Amino acid sequence: MRGELVLNEDNTHYYNSRRNPDITAAEVDAWVDQYAGTQVKELVLNVNCMRTSYASEVWEPVWSGFDPEGGEDQPLLASAGPAERNGAYQWIHMAWQLSMKGIDLYERWIARSRQLGISPWISIRMNDVHNVNDESHYLHNRLWRERPDLRRITGRFEEWTDRAFDYGHKEVRAYHFQLIREVVERYDVDGIELDWMRFGYHFRPGFESEGAVILTEFTSSVRKLLDEWEMKRGHRIKLSARVPSRPETALALGMDAAEWAQQGLIDQLVVTPFWETIETDMPIEIWKQLLRGTTVTLAAGLEVLIRAYPASKLRQMNTLETVRGAAMSFLNRGADRIYLFNYMDSQTAMADLHNYPNLLREAGHVETLRGKPRRHIVTYADTWAPGEASANILPVHCAAGRSRSIRIHIGEKPNQQAAMILIGMENGAGLLESGCRVYLNGQLCEWAGERILEKPCPEGAVFGFHIPDHAMKDGFHVIEVSTDHEVTLGWVEIAIGKLAPDA
Amino acid sequence: MRGELVLNEDNTHYYNSRRNPDITAAEVDAWVDQYAGTQVKELVLNVNCMRTSYASEVWEPVWSGFDPEGGEDQPLLASAGPAERNGAYQWIHMAWQLSMKGIDLYERWIARSRQLGISPWISIRMNDVHNVNDESHYLHNRLWRERPDLRRITGRFEEWTDRAFDYGHKEVRAYHFQLIREVVERYDVDGIELDWMRFGYHFRPGFESEGAVILTEFTSSVRKLLDEWEMKRGHRIKLSARVPSRPETALALGMDAAEWAQQGLIDQLVVTPFWETIETDMPIEIWKQLLRGTTVTLAAGLEVLIRAYPASKLRQMNTLETVRGAAMSFLNRGADRIYLFNYMDSQTAMADLHNYPNLLREAGHVETLRGKPRRHIVTYADTWAPGEASANILPVHCAAGRSRSIRIHIGEKPNQQAAMILIGMENGAGLLESGCRVYLNGQLCEWAGERILEKPCPEGAVFGFHIPDHAMKDGFHVIEVSTDHEVTLGWVEIAIGKLAPDA
Repeated sequence: MRGELVLNEDNTHYYNSRRNPDITAAEVDAWVDQYAGTQVKELVLNVNCMRTSYASEVWEPVWSGFDPEGGEDQPLLASAGPAERNGAYQWIHMAWQLSMKGIDLYERWIARSRQLGISPWISIRMNDVHNVNDESHYLHNRLWRERPDLRRITGRFEEWTDRAFDYGHKEVRAYHFQLIREVVERYDVDGIELDWMRFGYHFRPGFESEGAVILTEFTSSVRKLLDEWEMKRGHRIKLSARVPSRPETALALGMDAAEWAQQGLIDQLVVTPFWETIETDMPIEIWKQLLRGTTVTLAAGLEVLIRAYPASKLRQMNTLETVRGAAMSFLNRGADRIYLFNYMDSQTAMADLHNYPNLLREAGHVETLRGKPRRHIVTYADTWAPGEASANILPVHCAAGRSRSIRIHIGEKPNQQAAMILIGMENGAGLLESGCRVYLNGQLCEWAGERILEKPCPEGAVFGFHIPDHAMKDGFHVIEVSTDHEVTLGWVEIAIGKLAPDA
Repeated sequence: MRGELVLNEDNTHYYNSRRNPDITAAEVDAWVDQYAGTQVKELVLNVNCMRTSYASEVWEPVWSGFDPEGGEDQPLLASAGPAERNGAYQWIHMAWQLSMKGIDLYERWIARSRQLGISPWISIRMNDVHNVNDESHYLHNRLWRERPDLRRITGRFEEWTDRAFDYGHKEVRAYHFQLIREVVERYDVDGIELDWMRFGYHFRPGFESEGAVILTEFTSSVRKLLDEWEMKRGHRIKLSARVPSRPETALALGMDAAEWAQQGLIDQLVVTPFWETIETDMPIEIWKQLLRGTTVTLAAGLEVLIRAYPASKLRQMNTLETVRGAAMSFLNRGADRIYLFNYMDSQTAMADLHNYPNLLREAGHVETLRGKPRRHIVTYADTWAPGEASANILPVHCAAGRSRSIRIHIGEKPNQQAAMILIGMENGAGLLESGCRVYLNGQLCEWAGERILEKPCPEGAVFGFHIPDHAMKDGFHVIEVSTDHEVTLGWVEIAIGKLAPDA
């Protein structure tokens, strides 16, 4: 049956959320249990940012330079602000303590996953640049600190990714390859994921095409390494990669994922936004065409934040209903897997965390999504190559007397579920007063007045339009809005099965 | 040798530009001769808009309803404005006259092309909607006039394409298929082109995915028709299609070109903007990946207009130098052919028409483009599906102290040719006063002052920056601009081999 879940657990969440250095091995194991019997078929354990979350001998672990007796005011944490320092001390202390006690999270989780019938993977972040505005931050490794000449951009600093490693340098590739080698030797996993989306920028601006050749060669080297270890382990070791959501952008950033697939280097491809928002309209069909003739599985990557457009100041999390919408759409468009990133069991997590067990049991199959309330919300793509033209649907400016179109893919047509178009106003004006007419696939939708929308929702007023049953169908729907007066729309969604109540 | 030219001759240009009903068959033939001995390997003769330019028995020819004795004030031309009427009368009269004399342009041109070693094709516009704002316009056919229910959008009229035929209707498909059948029977050609880019919109908004299945089936029917005629003719009859420049948009408009290729239905694919501007950054690499495993040739379609961004009021034509830039880039990116649309021998033509013979001898091969002056100008994509997010690089708003990036693909690195970045200001302010710094691939480019740019050029001032030799390379180049004061850039290009002089 097509469709299942892949879940990424990041490199610090467990230490950060538990913060109990006295935790037992059995308690560590128990983390896996919440995923047993769910649709999660692959647990992808991320073991590094710029440092490792295990006792690496080739990179520095997060507790390198940490003085367990040194308290919060020690040199490693000196540049962290007061608000951050206490938390940092605690989670690093816990990581150090577990290591001292010989409890290796990943070793234990891999073993426990196998016991529970879940396939264990390890994910390696290929270019993590959290907090690089602070050169002395405790998360950074020595190579990065000592060799600013190995960074993408050396002459200016505007964004974290400016200070990412430049994979055009042999040292950078060798440095990351040795981490992969150690991981593959240390952990007996079913697969390795190269996470090129933390943070997605790996070359000097202008050298991404040259970079694409380099990363394909790099991926080939990793595949060869895995081939060797397959002989030793006696089982297949798969390779996956996380890349930007659209083929043009992925290639323009030096990630020629279609080539990796066609050369037989990867077994799974995760297409995904970076972080700002879940991307609800990724071109799954085009990716499937690019993977034609291969056995590579395509995973649609979901991020936990949801935002309507780049300039939006809102920062809200997805919920069970918004994930249902995205998952239903992607599976219907041909995705083989739904991949959850930042959907962890606390802190970095969905808004309605009490629904987490349901999400793990629903989001991987059309069958388990069918018939349940879901929301299909317009978002945008948050990752673009340097100099590439970027696009976003919202905000939509409606000039008087001109219609504007917005498209939304809903997956399967709802069966005996009412559906509504919900439109948020950007400028506070009333939509009715604007003389607004809303059509879905050419069918007029009846005005339903102001509605109260649960989060995620826009800041301003939201108005509803009833969708007539006969206007709904599978797949893409085009909403056409025309008004007699100028208005700007900042939020558009199709809600199915549970309608926002009257305001 | 990869790279050659395909030239499209539209359905009215010859009648319109010659306007001499006494023209002889030999004079008609001579039109082909200008393409002999050039890089034009395929002449693609377009035979219809909403009417045919030959004596069709299944559609109406352009002279249907025309009274040759009726003068300009006859019913057919009644709705045409006075300015248009005289010209319309003349060219329609000429078309009628030639037909009466038994001179069939296409029959003659096909024969003459074969004599001269050029491969003759016929192109059929699949949904031409010129002048549909005027329901009574002389170009329209009866089916369109009598059956408004067969149109894409019936409830409103904002753009010509709103009144395009909806291929969701069987009558529409049958109507166009019978034209194809007649053409294939009437003319012995090497290939048939289905021109889905006149005008690119073939389904009711929201029904494009369903439409994709329909057009693939339609294309398959055409292929079967050609298979039958191959038996009768005793030679291969190829099939080509013109589609939007980007795979996502093509598919989102119902044109699943990758599927046509993979099913073996087409032999050539032309990717192209619609009309507003040549599109200098079409994703050729992605198209080549989508065509992998097939023998389909990929033609990069060049339009004759060149504009910097959608809201630009300028309407300028390409020149030999701008075409060189685009062709060099596309061939270098893997295009098999350069396809010229609206590059005719007069009227709808390049700006520097005296260079037309050179263009025909240069634009098809990297070898003949190498070493010559060329211009690589930022433009945009002019075709988007209903509700799709659209993108354009320009205008670029530079906020104070933030760098902005623009990417340009130049094909091969110039060899001993000087190169310059040319930037046009949108708001009239001086660029030097803004504290502007310009980098190419990370290398600072020296200020070269205000420059005088030949057309095409922006309305306002243009400033130059010398590119150091060592900053140039093959392929993509990223220009980074940062300023101390806010400015807006409305034009960006890389000029190679002939620099704009000092102002």
